[in-house]
Amino acid sequence: MVITGIQALDNLINELSKLPGIGRKTAQRLAVFILKSEDSFPLHLSEAIRRVQEETRLCQRCFNIAEDRLCRICADPRRDKHKICVVEDIVDVMAIEGSNEYNGLYHVLGGVISPLAGVAADDLRLKELVDRCNTEEIQEILLALNSSTEGEATMIYISKLLRDKNIRLTRIASGIPMGSNLEFIDTATIGRAILTRQNL
Amino acid sequence: MVITGIQALDNLINELSKLPGIGRKTAQRLAVFILKSEDSFPLHLSEAIRRVQEETRLCQRCFNIAEDRLCRICADPRRDKHKICVVEDIVDVMAIEGSNEYNGLYHVLGGVISPLAGVAADDLRLKELVDRCNTEEIQEILLALNSSTEGEATMIYISKLLRDKNIRLTRIASGIPMGSNLEFIDTATIGRAILTRQNL
Repeated sequence: MVITGIQALDNLINELSKLPGIGRKTAQRLAVFILKSEDSFPLHLSEAIRRVQEETRLCQRCFNIAEDRLCRICADPRRDKHKICVVEDIVDVMAIEGSNEYNGLYHVLGGVISPLAGVAADDLRLKELVDRCNTEEIQEILLALNSSTEGEATMIYISKLLRDKNIRLTRIASGIPMGSNLEFIDTATIGRAILTRQNL
Repeated sequence: MVITGIQALDNLINELSKLPGIGRKTAQRLAVFILKSEDSFPLHLSEAIRRVQEETRLCQRCFNIAEDRLCRICADPRRDKHKICVVEDIVDVMAIEGSNEYNGLYHVLGGVISPLAGVAADDLRLKELVDRCNTEEIQEILLALNSSTEGEATMIYISKLLRDKNIRLTRIASGIPMGSNLEFIDTATIGRAILTRQNL
């Protein structure tokens, strides 16, 4: 698409627009920033983008991002090998690791069941999860999917799948975010927080 | 900075965070998108970033972005060579071109006078503007700087600079944006729109 008439710039704007959440105006602003930045920045950014796929792969066990056959978490002897936290995507692994509250392993599903988006149970890494439950010494599966309709449905599906195994099934709590104001929280969240209220 | 522990990914997140308006969380999301995208996208994006500086330069006359010695606007015989629109940045040229309401030339100042940011009049391309007024047959200078304090100050500075020349000096109108609701417009803009009201 012609925007400025300068081929190299239009090309960059078009490529940047393909990034999620980056519209045409933002892409334009980013492109001009790159254009005007010091020589080294475009080169470093360009190199970083080119290399990220070359130098990474998926962990063979949990499908988190990895540099070797196993990711750093699976390869870490200090992690609790009896727990698996099931997440939708590798960004969720990063988010949970950031909390410093979980010391077990992960299993990245690669999505949630979503008939509307054409994602069936077979498209997720559920078979691999069941295999891990059969071969590894798992004591607890913690489901940490987003609490969307699809996430909820997927959690129900997984709980049915693993019900017969002698494994404790848990899910992360839904409720009021820390530091937030009750007044501004949606009613569905408040309702859920009341239903799942905890003993003091 | 270590975020995920995966060097190539952390590196990409760090580079993306240097872009304007891109915080750490957004950089993380963009990096994972790039990581998971089809092979061709990272290569195309990386190439586009690498080439944008190589294949572009500044127009020798107006300092807009160009592929040759002159930019497409300066080189276009259909443009009115008697008018110069003075803008802060090349993104402003794009914005004004998008309106299809201006058919003259441009002059990109490269900033506005801002003592706080350490930008003095000498840091802008003002000498080049005066040179153009002396050598080209200019009939009108249209000042189209952002209406910030710095932009206003720079417009006053330029108008003093060019006062003695036999050139019509204009500025783009401040006022109520098209399609907007008076109720939600700030008082300074409304005040300005009343002061600069137009005859019907």
